[in-house]
Amino acid sequence: MQKIYGFKTADNIVAGENSIETLKENIGVVGNKVKRALIVTQKPMQNLGFVDIITKQLDEIGIKADVNTDIIPEPTVKSIEDISGNIRKKHYDLLIGVGGGSVLDTTKILAVLETNNNSIKEILGTDLVKYPGIPTVLIPTTAGTGSEVTPNAIVTLPEEQLKIGMVSRYLLPKLVIVDPSLTIGLPKSVTASTGMDAFIHSLESYISNKANPISDMFALRSIKLISSSIVEAYQNGGSIRARENMILGSLYGGMALTAAGTAAVHALAYPLGGKFKIAHGVANSMLLPHVMEFNMDCIADRLCDVARSMGIKENLPADKTAEKVIERLREWIEILNIPQDLSVYGVKKEDIHGLAISASKVTRLLDNNPKKLSVKDIENIYSKLLR
Amino acid sequence: MQKIYGFKTADNIVAGENSIETLKENIGVVGNKVKRALIVTQKPMQNLGFVDIITKQLDEIGIKADVNTDIIPEPTVKSIEDISGNIRKKHYDLLIGVGGGSVLDTTKILAVLETNNNSIKEILGTDLVKYPGIPTVLIPTTAGTGSEVTPNAIVTLPEEQLKIGMVSRYLLPKLVIVDPSLTIGLPKSVTASTGMDAFIHSLESYISNKANPISDMFALRSIKLISSSIVEAYQNGGSIRARENMILGSLYGGMALTAAGTAAVHALAYPLGGKFKIAHGVANSMLLPHVMEFNMDCIADRLCDVARSMGIKENLPADKTAEKVIERLREWIEILNIPQDLSVYGVKKEDIHGLAISASKVTRLLDNNPKKLSVKDIENIYSKLLR
Ligand SMILES: NC(=O)c1ccc[n+]([C@@H]2O[C@H](COP(=O)([O-])OP(=O)(O)OC[C@H]3O[C@@H](n4cnc5c(N)ncnc54)[C@H](O)[C@@H]3O)[C@@H](O)[C@H]2O)c1
Ligand SMILES: NC(=O)c1ccc[n+]([C@@H]2O[C@H](COP(=O)([O-])OP(=O)(O)OC[C@H]3O[C@@H](n4cnc5c(N)ncnc54)[C@H](O)[C@@H]3O)[C@@H](O)[C@H]2O)c1
Ligand SMILES: [Fe+2]
Ligand SMILES: [Fe+2]
Repeated sequence: MQKIYGFKTADNIVAGENSIETLKENIGVVGNKVKRALIVTQKPMQNLGFVDIITKQLDEIGIKADVNTDIIPEPTVKSIEDISGNIRKKHYDLLIGVGGGSVLDTTKILAVLETNNNSIKEILGTDLVKYPGIPTVLIPTTAGTGSEVTPNAIVTLPEEQLKIGMVSRYLLPKLVIVDPSLTIGLPKSVTASTGMDAFIHSLESYISNKANPISDMFALRSIKLISSSIVEAYQNGGSIRARENMILGSLYGGMALTAAGTAAVHALAYPLGGKFKIAHGVANSMLLPHVMEFNMDCIADRLCDVARSMGIKENLPADKTAEKVIERLREWIEILNIPQDLSVYGVKKEDIHGLAISASKVTRLLDNNPKKLSVKDIENIYSKLLR
Repeated sequence: MQKIYGFKTADNIVAGENSIETLKENIGVVGNKVKRALIVTQKPMQNLGFVDIITKQLDEIGIKADVNTDIIPEPTVKSIEDISGNIRKKHYDLLIGVGGGSVLDTTKILAVLETNNNSIKEILGTDLVKYPGIPTVLIPTTAGTGSEVTPNAIVTLPEEQLKIGMVSRYLLPKLVIVDPSLTIGLPKSVTASTGMDAFIHSLESYISNKANPISDMFALRSIKLISSSIVEAYQNGGSIRARENMILGSLYGGMALTAAGTAAVHALAYPLGGKFKIAHGVANSMLLPHVMEFNMDCIADRLCDVARSMGIKENLPADKTAEKVIERLREWIEILNIPQDLSVYGVKKEDIHGLAISASKVTRLLDNNPKKLSVKDIENIYSKLLR
């Protein structure tokens, strides 16, 4: 438990079903008088009509908006710098990101590139962004990353086969709109993997060495909401109640991880994303039970609190209750049809050592893990995912 | 339940025992380069050494700080405007409020008076402050109002025998430091009344017509923390664990009320403060059981959730469980030695009607109450406090 701890979040959060319709009345909070906005998104969200809902409102208040749908999933440094190069001359005074973590992270980075005379690589790492970016509005369309309220943005470095985080309070947006109705059309597999990612943010925050009373509150609430709804959201995607629980669970997960940080699951997931392009939520979910089993002797007590929030009521000793948590996670992975075999993605036995070396460098997150991992430990964990 | 709901809070929160020692390293978040700061406080806090802890740190980073200890409890409009008149010519670029709600509210108003060419009366009410104020750092020394994270400041209008709120997002501070060690020296009676105030913020937010999933999370967590520690903090003021629970409970209470608003208890307390100078927490505590009894037929279900957070475990039907909550509140008031008789403060039978008329005008809060109150209803409630 951290003795001195902190909390910061997005300046303004608006939530609830159809809250996207309130963009017009809430946009004043971005501060400056907006003239020209850019909507940053991807084709699927445009096809679902989200862009129209936004441009219609902006139109009514005299704001011209362009649309960029070129954002790639798990964005690379180059993909973001290309877009940045194109938009700089347009002098936008607001960026509106509408999408999953890939879009939101891209939007956050684009905003600070507008005002900082730096390449992305120069400002990767913690607190290297010098000046606030132009204002952003972030509108999540997955219930997963919580990126809308974190000071983090994650980029892929294909040359180095890694994913790296940019961490800066200047990445936090002016306004967040958390509208569960935007997630109704999520493909089943995305509901599954992003929902697990959100759960893992809260679980890792709760067992983090930097856990504290504030992060714990968000983490346990998030765990409760997601546990009650992840299977329902997957099986019955039209349930707005389940979708609202999931997107709030993801929001609180972002708040928890801002305050306490994620840990080994995320650290080990990065090389899988960087080298084998395994989607963030999928990589995390695959690793989850194995990393928790590795951690077990250090976290049994904390997992008992988690069990309570998950509604696991059996009256068992601490270690048995903790095992029940991992059992439940395995059940979810089964029900949600998340792959459990790295070879499906082309990972071979001989890749394991390199992956482990890469993961061992993600010290920003490994330092939060309640149990130290040697390269050998990491190799063992990856090996369990090679059938 | 509100369908569309929102959340906003202080830009940066740092918490934990002795976190006041981190002011120096965290002050960067206020944004501008600070040259001249004013510490806004009262004698008791200066005598306890809090001002020295701050000036020493500011000194080390080359910030000159003046100190003003003239803040009066439950501040009047005139008292704040007098100070404002005196400090304007000093061109401070940062105000640091160190105290209870009276000091924090004063600091918040002073900051916006610096940049808005208005009298206080012109900007009382909701969203009438035009420009952001100069930056503030707020450091609570009571565990009560949660003012450090609310967009509200409450002033007394003695002529009108009322208390009125100023509500504006510009009242939110850049930095909050929540250090439980500052509350160790609180007089017993202040621990009691301010602690009850914090509890009432969360309880009223939870039963408010504007309650929503976000405010509920903060409210229930706050209720849990305060219930577990209010008696201990009162009886054993040196317990840092109890003090930390109380000050976090108060912080979350402020977050809950920002999102959902308080209700009839606060509305009826204002005239008692305005006309008879009864301290805010005392007036609230006196009214609490009576207002909840009045509300009972509309809130029994919600009080069952509250009972659970309070650790009331008996297996009873909803209405009986709800009654247990009110019983527990009466026990606390007894143990905490909070007066239950308005005549002690000089209130007479013939004052009741005028008080009720005043209270009936606090529609900003009465509108949040789950049950409508007529002037007659309000008179009945006040009458129960005249023995
Ligand atoms: N910033 C942070 O704090 C943080 C935290 C965790 C992960 N991340 C990063 O976020 C990225 C992953 O984000 P993600 O998991 O949200 O996936 P994503 O943004 O890549 O989206 C996954 C897919 O779903 C589609 N999609 C999104 N919303 C949709 C909707 N409403 N309807 C239909 N299709 C939709 C997208 O077009 C995409 O093809 C990774 O790069 C990861 O590293 C960031
Ligand atoms: N802004 C809001 O959201 C909000 C909410 C509720 C109440 N309020 C307002 O806040 C005011 C009440 O604030 P309060 O209840 O914190 O009381 P307070 O600030 O008036 O303090 C009460 C007394 O305790 C003393 N004191 C404070 N901290 C101390 C410490 N650490 N050690 C020793 N003595 C200490 C003060 O000097 C004062 O005499 C009222 O005006 C009320 O209307 C504001
Ligand atoms: Fe993640
Ligand atoms: Fe209050």
